Amino acid sequence: MKFSVTVVLKKDVLDPQGKVVQNTLNNLGMSDLKSVRQGKFFEIEIDEQDQKKAEIKVDGMCKKLLVNLIIEDYKINKL
Amino acid sequence: MKFSVTVVLKKDVLDPQGKVVQNTLNNLGMSDLKSVRQGKFFEIEIDEQDQKKAEIKVDGMCKKLLVNLIIEDYKINKL
Repeated sequence: MKFSVTVVLKKDVLDPQGKVVQNTLNNLGMSDLKSVRQGKFFEIEIDEQDQKKAEIKVDGMCKKLLVNLIIEDYKINKL
Repeated sequence: MKFSVTVVLKKDVLDPQGKVVQNTLNNLGMSDLKSVRQGKFFEIEIDEQDQKKAEIKVDGMCKKLLVNLIIEDYKINKL
């Protein structure tokens, strides 16, 4: 079973990396740009047929390693 | 208008970062893990009402800066 996990900084946390990307795009002549925020993306495949159980496992991975819950939000989707 | 862009390494390109995450999860006792691949995630907000035009602009940003087309694939979604 395959899941995608997207991790983004919480709304009120500064995102310097996204800011740099935004400035660079502006310098490349892209106007109308309001905001860019950068995050992480994981594609996780696990050997578990039961979707509920699989989701619980992926959620555990997020909490234990992939996400810093203090400053980041995450979303899990089945692929 | 807000879009999400996910960038992942092409299927046949080695992903050492994902491998490290996978090994670490294994060491933390997560079994049943088949594969982990890591990518990038962008949330882009642009000041353009027409969805078609907006998508073309975001696609241009991907091609010019965000994505290395030789080794990476990308997907654009409207949020």
